Amino acid sequence: MRQYHPVTYEVVKALQAVVGEKYVKTDADTLDKYKLDENLDPTFWRLPEVVVSAGSTEEVAKVMQIANQYGVPVTPRSAGTSVSCGAIPTYHGIVLLLERMNQIREINEEGMYMVVEAGVRTIDIQNLAHEKGLMYAGDPCSSDSCLIGGNLATNAGGNKAVRYGTTRHQVYSVEVVLPNGKVTTLGATLKKCSTGFCLDQLIIGSEGTLGIITKATLKLVPLAPYKLDVLAVFTDLAKATALVPKLVKAGLNPTSVEFMDNNFVRSASDYSDLKLPHYEDGCYDIVSIETFNEDELDDKMEKLSAICEECGATDVLEADDRVWQVRRNCLESTRSLSEVQTSEDLVVPVTKIAACIQALVKESEQYDFRVFCLAHAGDGNLHFQILKCDMSDAEWERQLEEFRHTAYRYVYDLGGRLSGEHGIGMKRVCYMEEYTDPVEMELMKTIKGAMDPNWILNPGKVFNPVEKQ
Amino acid sequence: MRQYHPVTYEVVKALQAVVGEKYVKTDADTLDKYKLDENLDPTFWRLPEVVVSAGSTEEVAKVMQIANQYGVPVTPRSAGTSVSCGAIPTYHGIVLLLERMNQIREINEEGMYMVVEAGVRTIDIQNLAHEKGLMYAGDPCSSDSCLIGGNLATNAGGNKAVRYGTTRHQVYSVEVVLPNGKVTTLGATLKKCSTGFCLDQLIIGSEGTLGIITKATLKLVPLAPYKLDVLAVFTDLAKATALVPKLVKAGLNPTSVEFMDNNFVRSASDYSDLKLPHYEDGCYDIVSIETFNEDELDDKMEKLSAICEECGATDVLEADDRVWQVRRNCLESTRSLSEVQTSEDLVVPVTKIAACIQALVKESEQYDFRVFCLAHAGDGNLHFQILKCDMSDAEWERQLEEFRHTAYRYVYDLGGRLSGEHGIGMKRVCYMEEYTDPVEMELMKTIKGAMDPNWILNPGKVFNPVEKQ
Repeated sequence: MRQYHPVTYEVVKALQAVVGEKYVKTDADTLDKYKLDENLDPTFWRLPEVVVSAGSTEEVAKVMQIANQYGVPVTPRSAGTSVSCGAIPTYHGIVLLLERMNQIREINEEGMYMVVEAGVRTIDIQNLAHEKGLMYAGDPCSSDSCLIGGNLATNAGGNKAVRYGTTRHQVYSVEVVLPNGKVTTLGATLKKCSTGFCLDQLIIGSEGTLGIITKATLKLVPLAPYKLDVLAVFTDLAKATALVPKLVKAGLNPTSVEFMDNNFVRSASDYSDLKLPHYEDGCYDIVSIETFNEDELDDKMEKLSAICEECGATDVLEADDRVWQVRRNCLESTRSLSEVQTSEDLVVPVTKIAACIQALVKESEQYDFRVFCLAHAGDGNLHFQILKCDMSDAEWERQLEEFRHTAYRYVYDLGGRLSGEHGIGMKRVCYMEEYTDPVEMELMKTIKGAMDPNWILNPGKVFNPVEKQ
Repeated sequence: MRQYHPVTYEVVKALQAVVGEKYVKTDADTLDKYKLDENLDPTFWRLPEVVVSAGSTEEVAKVMQIANQYGVPVTPRSAGTSVSCGAIPTYHGIVLLLERMNQIREINEEGMYMVVEAGVRTIDIQNLAHEKGLMYAGDPCSSDSCLIGGNLATNAGGNKAVRYGTTRHQVYSVEVVLPNGKVTTLGATLKKCSTGFCLDQLIIGSEGTLGIITKATLKLVPLAPYKLDVLAVFTDLAKATALVPKLVKAGLNPTSVEFMDNNFVRSASDYSDLKLPHYEDGCYDIVSIETFNEDELDDKMEKLSAICEECGATDVLEADDRVWQVRRNCLESTRSLSEVQTSEDLVVPVTKIAACIQALVKESEQYDFRVFCLAHAGDGNLHFQILKCDMSDAEWERQLEEFRHTAYRYVYDLGGRLSGEHGIGMKRVCYMEEYTDPVEMELMKTIKGAMDPNWILNPGKVFNPVEKQ
């Protein structure tokens, strides 16, 4: 394991000189607060040595310069909503908060873009765009609590990715503090460009290992005036999942296609205190369609209903807010069922999502844990919530490991990957090292090593640091 | 200037052992043929020392291994349709042809993708997709002669980029031979992914400096059944260009918005032997609209006509194939007017395209050369064809340099860039070094140096090689 320099008194003094004393915390309560994120498995928790809150890009740059000078690792932290231990300081050192950099600098309706600092809440971006009759299409499920910097770092997905793509598709440019403490802006507010390397996309989704995004220019799109959400209820999981590739093929261009298995239908209905149809035996597909033309909406609704019926839907209803409330409460609703649980975020080609859900649900039945399945099905992204319930620690570890190996091998054989939207973080590093093509992995580490020769920026995320030469 | 090892008899023998004798050419005629591409300025021409034609990814990999072993530079070459000297062997050495790797490996209608080798002609990809009721949306103007490998290397743009994006947006994954001769596949056939760095997008558009793309999985999209092309004629350049941002703002989501000034209207009409309206004084905007719904097309056409009239169009007509023929013949049509000419490929934010065309056309009137203007206006991409006509060489050089500096400074001040779709190649390296933010440039060179420590893959493109330490 790579060794780093401890945060000495001298380092703390240097940090205080940059951001001011009140933004440098070393008290036990603060350190304890930042040892974790929304991944609740204590085996991953690591205490920082100091927590620094930066107020500007220049301060972030100076913190990186100090970190390089002393050889101290830096873990940038957004709202800490990662479920992949993306915000945990694996090698201790500095946790660097961006939350004070929370200004929306500009909204340009004519040019349809918004300039935001890293610490702006995603929902505030969505709301401001909406007020102007526009839309910011990035829409992670945690949008009311997460910050845009974290969305950019992990290339967050969410509810609208089927039609609009993920966070990386919503970006014109990013201002970045590089691991060496230099600042640059990558990308530009252009529809096309063939002027040098596409470095903006390299930084986006690198989980804060290649640079700290301090500001971004985000694309806005016209707000579609016509919208309808449909709930298709199935009493057969195979039929419910088989709907997905048919929808995509039909050219309906849906905004979302969400799938919930009956485990989630029950637990989230109970949690929300709502009774929805086929509580006892229903699997749900929720499909959202948006259009700019009323006839087109009618036309698509007709096609959608026909496809749902063809696929054997038991009920096809308009999905009102109760349905979305149940959908939103899925994860929360499992908390009371098992204190220990873990989640998977697998992604496969959309044409394989039906087969994949069916195969992995069947596989999971061999184990003692409970598996709840939820999918952003329209983009092939599958969430398994795995509940330990009353298993022993040893059995839990053993069976989980076995299930993961079977599932991951199967997903990679389908052309899939470990993470669709949550990122690798610290949680999946060992699997990333195992399942990634060695040439690709070597290339990632070559680029990381070249950009961050001291490996001080967020080490231990995405992959293991290379040992010191 | 960086020094490389010459191609010795030993190197030629080693190359022959890999690809076979008949695919290694050192005769004067062959070398002469590959000293240039479609940039016709002889000051850029450079003779290769050997021309090698690879038949497989394995052969490309072995050629790179030999090049590293001996320290010989390699210039990968697609169809040689670059107008930016992208295929010229700046430092001599090996020209590596990919044209034998010309198989379409798979078309998957269900999954809507196509797997192609680097040497497949772009038009063959478009046609095959079309036969299956699908569309490959990459559409450079040279699609009937260029190869997909070159499109990927330069992130080619073209006629449909307004709606569908450029070549980089049409790609699921690329098989790449890295500068060190190792082979990997970057990206995956997935709608979303958060599993490691976005290396596919780093390679795409790097103009063959970071890797040689040997195979790609391309996205296909549903073919829109309703389509109409409109020609809006203006007798006032300011009014013609002012239409563009209005169109974008109206949410019409056009497939193309092309602009031609009256110089091009005249020369291309003459060349095509076609008489189109307002030959004497017309500027043209050609707008294509595609929809999946007939009502939607009618609706959009109504809006489009209204906007054209509002903007002061003299005539609004359906654009038939004659209009597109004139558009396609623009560049060819200037050949007879001046033997020496050069082109610019500037790109600015779409909201700035009207002001930019007006300002630069006005600026150009101060010089003795003739400037013809053509724009993929809907994506802010502006082509200036600059004709030397009967200027002296010295005046041409002097005035061109002066115009470029004024134009580039102006474009960068608008947030624009040197190249929208043709790439930097060898032609624009000095300007790239001058106008790029130094931190960004250093980062590009850091990544290049890490991935290609001997700087043997396509050196002298995009930027100057770093001197040997």
